Amino acid sequence: MIEQFDVVDLIHTKRDRGILSTDQINWMIDAYTRGYIADEQMSAMTMAIYLNGMERSEIRDLTLAMVATGERLDFSGLSKKTTDKHSTGGVGDKITLPLAPLVASFGVAVPQLSGRGLGHTGGTLDKLESIPGWRAHLSTEEFYSQLDAVGAVVCAASADLAPADGKLYALRDITGTVESIPLIASSIMSKKIAEGTAALVLDVKFGSGAFMKDPARSRELAETMVRLGTDAGVATVALLTNMNVPLGLAIGNANEVRESVEVLAGGGPADVIELTLALAREMLALAGQPDADVEAALADGRAMDTWRRMISAQGGDPSAALPTPRESHVVLAPSSGVLVSQEALPFGVAAWRLGAGRARQQDPVQHAAGIDLHAKPGDLVTAGQPLFTLHTDEPARFDRALEVLEGAYTIGSVGDSVDDGGPLILDRVTA
Amino acid sequence: MIEQFDVVDLIHTKRDRGILSTDQINWMIDAYTRGYIADEQMSAMTMAIYLNGMERSEIRDLTLAMVATGERLDFSGLSKKTTDKHSTGGVGDKITLPLAPLVASFGVAVPQLSGRGLGHTGGTLDKLESIPGWRAHLSTEEFYSQLDAVGAVVCAASADLAPADGKLYALRDITGTVESIPLIASSIMSKKIAEGTAALVLDVKFGSGAFMKDPARSRELAETMVRLGTDAGVATVALLTNMNVPLGLAIGNANEVRESVEVLAGGGPADVIELTLALAREMLALAGQPDADVEAALADGRAMDTWRRMISAQGGDPSAALPTPRESHVVLAPSSGVLVSQEALPFGVAAWRLGAGRARQQDPVQHAAGIDLHAKPGDLVTAGQPLFTLHTDEPARFDRALEVLEGAYTIGSVGDSVDDGGPLILDRVTA
Repeated sequence: MIEQFDVVDLIHTKRDRGILSTDQINWMIDAYTRGYIADEQMSAMTMAIYLNGMERSEIRDLTLAMVATGERLDFSGLSKKTTDKHSTGGVGDKITLPLAPLVASFGVAVPQLSGRGLGHTGGTLDKLESIPGWRAHLSTEEFYSQLDAVGAVVCAASADLAPADGKLYALRDITGTVESIPLIASSIMSKKIAEGTAALVLDVKFGSGAFMKDPARSRELAETMVRLGTDAGVATVALLTNMNVPLGLAIGNANEVRESVEVLAGGGPADVIELTLALAREMLALAGQPDADVEAALADGRAMDTWRRMISAQGGDPSAALPTPRESHVVLAPSSGVLVSQEALPFGVAAWRLGAGRARQQDPVQHAAGIDLHAKPGDLVTAGQPLFTLHTDEPARFDRALEVLEGAYTIGSVGDSVDDGGPLILDRVTA
Repeated sequence: MIEQFDVVDLIHTKRDRGILSTDQINWMIDAYTRGYIADEQMSAMTMAIYLNGMERSEIRDLTLAMVATGERLDFSGLSKKTTDKHSTGGVGDKITLPLAPLVASFGVAVPQLSGRGLGHTGGTLDKLESIPGWRAHLSTEEFYSQLDAVGAVVCAASADLAPADGKLYALRDITGTVESIPLIASSIMSKKIAEGTAALVLDVKFGSGAFMKDPARSRELAETMVRLGTDAGVATVALLTNMNVPLGLAIGNANEVRESVEVLAGGGPADVIELTLALAREMLALAGQPDADVEAALADGRAMDTWRRMISAQGGDPSAALPTPRESHVVLAPSSGVLVSQEALPFGVAAWRLGAGRARQQDPVQHAAGIDLHAKPGDLVTAGQPLFTLHTDEPARFDRALEVLEGAYTIGSVGDSVDDGGPLILDRVTA
């Protein structure tokens, strides 16, 4: 430590709307990571940051200070260009699964270090772990070698990348300071900068099923992250995407893998295809292939081929049957008409309550639990037809899932306006 | 626990400027005291309270919830009326020492449960412990019996009174949330309500040496506390008093006892006498003696007699010599003129640095350390005359004390306006 500060003075500074210096932020993050600053002091600081905000310079300093607490990967020895994607999380968001192999099929490397789900948003690793044999943890050698050979890797982030972020996120989660733009932006970008990717496409979601309900706030988050990435030498672009309704028809783990494979096979729901293609184009453009024909790669099986190699390389059997639930419960349309609303948040919470997600970091998930939707907003429905099916291994969970779905969808008359929160991709944010 | 809440929901409520219910506050304080809510969660809550404030109902609920975590004393069996005083703390504030025996000499009981000093404001128990033999800790029986026989008791508060307050104060001290009106008011008043006094006079200070620099903020604190006391059935009045300059001529421990004894002997500095008499009149008025001749009780030795009995009852020898410092350092007037300023805060910090105060709760204090002032603002001074004398047992401490006193006093010309922050007693706040 170059300089020593008094943490209470730093808390007073932020509490009184002052600006922390680079030295102060570097010292604070290093001292917190080493355990010299206590959790109760850092949580007072994060609440002061939540309520009083941070200047642009402070957010940059905070991000780089977190990067500096761990190692930073280096892909300069790799023969391929690196490009990655990060989503702020949503209900039914399995886009990484078709996207990583699709992009890698163009000869670029996608070093996708992912996390597990917490609360109503699922985790990419949880979904992939429903594939028999597949493992999330790779050694550094396996990681580099798979990037070189296959191009696509989706695996668990090492605890050595920005360890301050892991400690700070766990603290924020139990102290009510999650939904803060400076803290979210620095958390995400510290991991991605440490990950060493040359390019990054951010999928920043807004709407009922997202962190940020409000598009204006999600735009602010996107702008903050794009600036952080660009300043740190990572070519960064963001798409603002709609999370008012679930993405696709599957919400869970194994069923989301199934839907992803459909997309890789040239089928699948229109919204999943649209978002996959849009993000693939952005990732490839940043990697120097602005004209890549991503639709062709889905249609001709190149993306599927890369998927199978990616799954096999991590011990998974891409042909194996996926787990099925012990119990399912079908909900039928009570009347005929048009499905005019289907809110993302209650469907995400219901899938979580069925066992697809976890309440605490150490809890397991049920791979076969979740929800299959049989209609999307705008679809005509007939009284008695299946609207959605709930899956779980523990039937006692149905009641609490159904409870949260009360009022989460509406059947209206033909001609009623459909409440889907607007277009899937609202805007694109660049540096 | 009657009802169960999620502490993160409660933090979100206060973070988002909501109002906590009585049940929520009761649960939170009880759960925190039992260790069910973690320090890092409570410090996020206190920072949210600091920045977003609390409604009147919440402050009342918080105060009573802290009272409910411990025992509440009951003086209904006592033959005397009870009346007490609390000061928010200042530099040279030894008023409790002459005040408690003065008031008790009128046949009322003063159950003064006191604390120790922390930072630049001294503690009443630290001062009294400079008297050989005197002990701060009394059993419950000793406490009641001394109240009955002598009337005045100044002793350490039991940890069983509002234990939530002790835990919360220690947390606030290291997490930057001390200077919050809802938190200060509930902290002080929870102890005083639990103490069981029927009447209470608050000495709420403002100015450079006080918690609250601004008179308007100290008035808000006074009004909040008067309301809390009144609502809880304690007859409560507050005086707003000036802490821009040190109170009296002695700052320290043994020297403050010496000055207090001078006041009890009918002498002493004018400001100490004025404040002692004003507070004594308020305390006695609340105890049903609005016309008590408090000046006479100082002049005729009744107050001194009660002082000697109060000190003896707690093992102290009121005739014993008080400790003297190993080293003293006299600062002389650099020029002739009028002392036009003498700022309380730097003199308080200097006395603290000389060893009169402590930086951490567990540190000892030096009983002979401190500062004797030889002039007060408005006094004429001659070049070369002693302005003040520093005392310590460790001469290495002189430098850092002198450092903070640079610019803390000014000698001007006769006719210059004197910067003493105005009258000693600014106002009186009643319910």
